Amino acid sequence: MRMAHLVTNCTFSPSPAVKPYSKSPSYCCNVTRFQSLKSSNLILKSCSKRQKKSFVICASAAVQGQTDKTQTPLTGNQQASGHSSSKPRKVMVIGGDGYCGWATALHLSNKGYEVAIVDNLVRRLFDHQLGLDSLTPIASIQNRIRRWKSLTGKTIQLYIGDICDFEFLSEAFKSFEPDSAVHFGEQRSAPYSMIDRSRAVFTQHNNVIGTLNVLFAIKEFSEECHLVKLGTMGEYGTPNIDIEEGFLTITHNGRTDTLPYPKQASSFYHLSKVHDSHNIAFTCKAWGIRATDLNQGVVYGVRTDETAMHQELSNRFDYDGIFGTALNRFCVQAAVGHPLTVYGKGGQTRGYLDIRDTVQCIELAIANPAKPGEFRVFNQFTEQFSVNELANLVTSAGAKLGLDVETKSVPNPRVEAEEHYYNAKHTKLIELGLVPHLLSDSLLDTLLNFAIQYKDRVDMAQIMPSVSWRKMGAKPKTVSV
Amino acid sequence: MRMAHLVTNCTFSPSPAVKPYSKSPSYCCNVTRFQSLKSSNLILKSCSKRQKKSFVICASAAVQGQTDKTQTPLTGNQQASGHSSSKPRKVMVIGGDGYCGWATALHLSNKGYEVAIVDNLVRRLFDHQLGLDSLTPIASIQNRIRRWKSLTGKTIQLYIGDICDFEFLSEAFKSFEPDSAVHFGEQRSAPYSMIDRSRAVFTQHNNVIGTLNVLFAIKEFSEECHLVKLGTMGEYGTPNIDIEEGFLTITHNGRTDTLPYPKQASSFYHLSKVHDSHNIAFTCKAWGIRATDLNQGVVYGVRTDETAMHQELSNRFDYDGIFGTALNRFCVQAAVGHPLTVYGKGGQTRGYLDIRDTVQCIELAIANPAKPGEFRVFNQFTEQFSVNELANLVTSAGAKLGLDVETKSVPNPRVEAEEHYYNAKHTKLIELGLVPHLLSDSLLDTLLNFAIQYKDRVDMAQIMPSVSWRKMGAKPKTVSV
Repeated sequence: MRMAHLVTNCTFSPSPAVKPYSKSPSYCCNVTRFQSLKSSNLILKSCSKRQKKSFVICASAAVQGQTDKTQTPLTGNQQASGHSSSKPRKVMVIGGDGYCGWATALHLSNKGYEVAIVDNLVRRLFDHQLGLDSLTPIASIQNRIRRWKSLTGKTIQLYIGDICDFEFLSEAFKSFEPDSAVHFGEQRSAPYSMIDRSRAVFTQHNNVIGTLNVLFAIKEFSEECHLVKLGTMGEYGTPNIDIEEGFLTITHNGRTDTLPYPKQASSFYHLSKVHDSHNIAFTCKAWGIRATDLNQGVVYGVRTDETAMHQELSNRFDYDGIFGTALNRFCVQAAVGHPLTVYGKGGQTRGYLDIRDTVQCIELAIANPAKPGEFRVFNQFTEQFSVNELANLVTSAGAKLGLDVETKSVPNPRVEAEEHYYNAKHTKLIELGLVPHLLSDSLLDTLLNFAIQYKDRVDMAQIMPSVSWRKMGAKPKTVSV
Repeated sequence: MRMAHLVTNCTFSPSPAVKPYSKSPSYCCNVTRFQSLKSSNLILKSCSKRQKKSFVICASAAVQGQTDKTQTPLTGNQQASGHSSSKPRKVMVIGGDGYCGWATALHLSNKGYEVAIVDNLVRRLFDHQLGLDSLTPIASIQNRIRRWKSLTGKTIQLYIGDICDFEFLSEAFKSFEPDSAVHFGEQRSAPYSMIDRSRAVFTQHNNVIGTLNVLFAIKEFSEECHLVKLGTMGEYGTPNIDIEEGFLTITHNGRTDTLPYPKQASSFYHLSKVHDSHNIAFTCKAWGIRATDLNQGVVYGVRTDETAMHQELSNRFDYDGIFGTALNRFCVQAAVGHPLTVYGKGGQTRGYLDIRDTVQCIELAIANPAKPGEFRVFNQFTEQFSVNELANLVTSAGAKLGLDVETKSVPNPRVEAEEHYYNAKHTKLIELGLVPHLLSDSLLDTLLNFAIQYKDRVDMAQIMPSVSWRKMGAKPKTVSV
């Protein structure tokens, strides 16, 4: 039988599965046996019988009772949101080793929440399989968590496993007992989902079934747990009317109703998020699940207060044609003297936000939970830009740093409108207290300079788009050297 | 390597996998070797090596060239639908052993189409696992097809396998080369999807991934093939405005667009169809797939012209709490003197249609295909009724036959509005030529009398609802004897 696999930031005796970044024993200070868990059942999935014997499960005292009272964990009007009996303290961050997830896990830990990361680390596997790498060197999740502990004294619990494995997920829920579950644990690249049939099927299976399992785990083990689910602005597509936050009041033939906003997603990835949204909305109605669906825009940037504390806490920064988002990729292109690659006409307009606002938004959603049975949708972005506008901003900012930035149009690998109306509402998170970081302020400080700092690590082979929406086929696509 | 498994209605030498209903060699008349297929590759999936040797793959001459010219295969304005170069002749009926699929396969074969059934027969397995049975005895798919051949001289090809297995589906597409693919091949019961977590996950995985595979197979092997996909009226839920056919023109803040009609499905099954609809719409846009999504209402009845020809062609008739649809179940309850079980207040209103209209609608959709890149949605039902109206109709019709029919309200196992507005459009199939059978004419002739005829086969244990939307859990639910 497979069990949940609790891995913490400290071990009594290092095993082959735990390779400390530094050998300093300081990582293991203040350690006590975590008695409330049946530690004999907590084993590393990948361990052989021989390895199991040498692996010791433990947790710091902080796991049993959060001792850091220096920071106020909650903001906003919590009482008004129907969760008045107890404050949410324990947050499970599913996908907490990823780009947004890691930054969020640290931010929440820093704010005084008790955090557990659930991750199968498959995002790291994708890089190996596709020959890609983060611009920034990133430490192992084990070393990340150890470093966080050594710097702040705060413990982050780690459950390594796949949420599509319900037995694993059940054990994680039962042992951690989260008040909130932030769900980043999905394959999150549109181009990845369009590589070939098997990646399309993987994306929809992984995302849809994983989310179903999270919903069942909440219903079965943690009924009051607030689900904070990462959706995407891409669920809406580019309609010729204003985009509202999740719902639209429609008058038709003299009658009126408020209905889910119509969805027009444009990749198998974006579609998987549409499917999730429908599934979650149903369980809120049928089971009384409390859920917040955050339809996030394109995230840029890499530094947050927490990830900037130490090199081992660095977040990943993707600039490749598969996982790199438009603005991050442009900054890397500018830094290495590669023309900015605008897909098609460049009129494609989307919502964008700084990763420092992602972590802020998640915290606001947790601190102000949805009511039981409520399916709440927030559009999570701060500014709209067209691709051409982004290219112009990067060109101007580059000039101030002495970079001669060119732009070229490349054939659009996607199927999307290149000139269209776009006006998406995004007021609900502002009303909860979001104070945005604006791109004009961040571009030079935290993006271009960052790309320049790491430009020697840029692999030019990763920059151009390699996946075509129209040409994708059923046959497995392999990556040549 | 797994291959497609072509099983036809005739064999040179009977094998353990082929058990003729009658031993008459007449089933094998007019047989020639089907040279265009690599028969050496066509093996029964379940065959052992020893069995393979005794199994001979063949097809009648009719497979190579349809010889029956007595019936006109096409109706409607085909030229107007952009498929002017050649008439669709070859129809793959995925899920052709099921309730709607079997009736459709026979109807199309009777109308002169060349038909292949693709089915994994899992619907029969569900009955075994849940202890359920069709009211009508149904023959094996092999015997059904043999009987059809012996009565009409028409061949239906049979591919036994799972469309979630892309290798199998690919071989079926490559060998049959369909002009149209009618896709009934999904788990189609809302209560089944709400039994437990594993059935919910199975339903969404099976339906969504199966449909993705069909879309990839069309793109890869049969780009001109017209997908006729069975959706459900349940995708729309019960909005407080009129339900249109797939799309809604919305004016909002002074701007107008025509967008997908908002979806509010109310079971994991209905949700799976919503997911399918979004996936199909995307592939029409991205790849130029031609698709018709038939949002079907609740089907009643069992006899069609073709299934009535012989007892071995009988269709299944489900009256149980899992697979039985409301009206069919009411007729069986009336026949055996069980009170009609109205869920809750009984104001739940839905669209209904006679199975004779299902087969008519499918034929109309095939004969008038969608254009390349077109995602077309038809609402496939003929009349609206509330559950209370159905109960009253059955009570009145029963009285004419001397039955004393009672009605009782039982706690609603579903989560749904029991009193609501409902007005759904359904004109597009009428415009293509649908001539509806109305319930008032069918109720006595083909439904109540039919239920009375088979009432000795009714298992009273199957009649009551056994699945609760609210109480469903993560743990596997087993059926007690």
